[in-house]
Amino acid sequence: MKIARFSTDGSPRYGIVDDDELVVLTGDPMYHGYDTSGERVPLSDARILAPVIPRSKVVCVGMNYAAHRREMGHEGPETPLIFLKPNTAVVGPGDPIVIPPVEGRIVHEGELALVIGSVAKRVKAENWRDVVFGVTIANDVSARDVMFADGQWARAKGYDTFCPLGPFIDTELDPTNLEIETFVDGELRRKGNTGDLLHTIPQLIEFISDVWTLLPGDLILTGTPDGLGGFVDGQTIDITIEGLGTLSNPAKNRDDRDY
Amino acid sequence: MKIARFSTDGSPRYGIVDDDELVVLTGDPMYHGYDTSGERVPLSDARILAPVIPRSKVVCVGMNYAAHRREMGHEGPETPLIFLKPNTAVVGPGDPIVIPPVEGRIVHEGELALVIGSVAKRVKAENWRDVVFGVTIANDVSARDVMFADGQWARAKGYDTFCPLGPFIDTELDPTNLEIETFVDGELRRKGNTGDLLHTIPQLIEFISDVWTLLPGDLILTGTPDGLGGFVDGQTIDITIEGLGTLSNPAKNRDDRDY
Repeated sequence: MKIARFSTDGSPRYGIVDDDELVVLTGDPMYHGYDTSGERVPLSDARILAPVIPRSKVVCVGMNYAAHRREMGHEGPETPLIFLKPNTAVVGPGDPIVIPPVEGRIVHEGELALVIGSVAKRVKAENWRDVVFGVTIANDVSARDVMFADGQWARAKGYDTFCPLGPFIDTELDPTNLEIETFVDGELRRKGNTGDLLHTIPQLIEFISDVWTLLPGDLILTGTPDGLGGFVDGQTIDITIEGLGTLSNPAKNRDDRDY
Repeated sequence: MKIARFSTDGSPRYGIVDDDELVVLTGDPMYHGYDTSGERVPLSDARILAPVIPRSKVVCVGMNYAAHRREMGHEGPETPLIFLKPNTAVVGPGDPIVIPPVEGRIVHEGELALVIGSVAKRVKAENWRDVVFGVTIANDVSARDVMFADGQWARAKGYDTFCPLGPFIDTELDPTNLEIETFVDGELRRKGNTGDLLHTIPQLIEFISDVWTLLPGDLILTGTPDGLGGFVDGQTIDITIEGLGTLSNPAKNRDDRDY
């Protein structure tokens, strides 16, 4: 089942994607189940929003594809390298990635995102499905040179708009063998398959939920394949994951209207 | 004015500290002002809770005292080094700091914390007071060896319970010249003064709100003075800031009941 968060009049609502229509739900299905309101909205009449705004955190996993790890010159770690983006970085499909006035390259990192569906603390790997509501697409946008200047990645990866998310949450898709492709202005820049994750989804759930209590709506971005690439003002970044559609966002330089 | 978040029966309420009593408020003063319910509760009958749970993030500032920066062997940066703890790390006065089963030392970092009171984005330094609701005490607890093992600090500083906070928010105290002392089992371990911050509070507000939109209830931990020191299971960590009282937390090793 594909779940969308959308608006037609400014207020967020939730719906199940049924071909080219949305079957409108009475509330957020993560908390209120799948009761329908009886209304159907054509997808073309809806503005699709970020499918979830985390209550707490966006957990990212670094160096989780072998090829990307080599590309970054990274030897370790044996344990997953985890870090945080703030929930204020999340934007939806079509929303601009606003490039702040910083030195150096801004890069895309197309990733499979897990949407946590319940309070998750010290979950065993084999029970990972109990706490994952579904999966979607995320772009772990990063100011590459700020990463290296700071050492810590929170600023470089946490700017407002640096976590595009969507378009839908799929609650049934098996996430273990999906092609991921990232395009800039239609040109393929990165390609990978979630089957190549160094730390698998069950392992990530066990490791991360041992460190941090995860709350419903929190996200885990599972890492990016290799193929570093930047983008600039005016370009459009598309991330496609098999079965999840395409997350598309234009990039623009920050200006005085971006308040 | 000193604001407490407290409970007598399990539900959080808010009150103004008046000597040894709490003047009970009808709601969270950050959103609902200072209307009183008419009830007064003796402080001794109240369990004092973390004075705020951030809606989004705990922003930390690294190396923000000259002596601590030298101690860490850090040359730069000229800009503030900022990183994140998740809101799930916040606990209140008296709550245990639960030490996870990781290698190496667990250290205390007593810090002045700013409590953000409104949506804050691209705030000018001179307007910092407009977005700060008040100040309190925080302990930026860190698993020192995990910091170095990971390189990124999010895990080492983000474990559940690694952000003790409180006991009160002071809405009027001038935070620019306050003594900070940290004690382990009553023995002084660190000492500093907020007048020695390398990046001042107005500068931090301008810098951080340019990177991240801050939401009401978000925290900025302004950095720790020098005097690295660890603690272990069974010890108690007290942090005293002039005018803000003492934040006291016992430490215990994680056990199977810590779910």
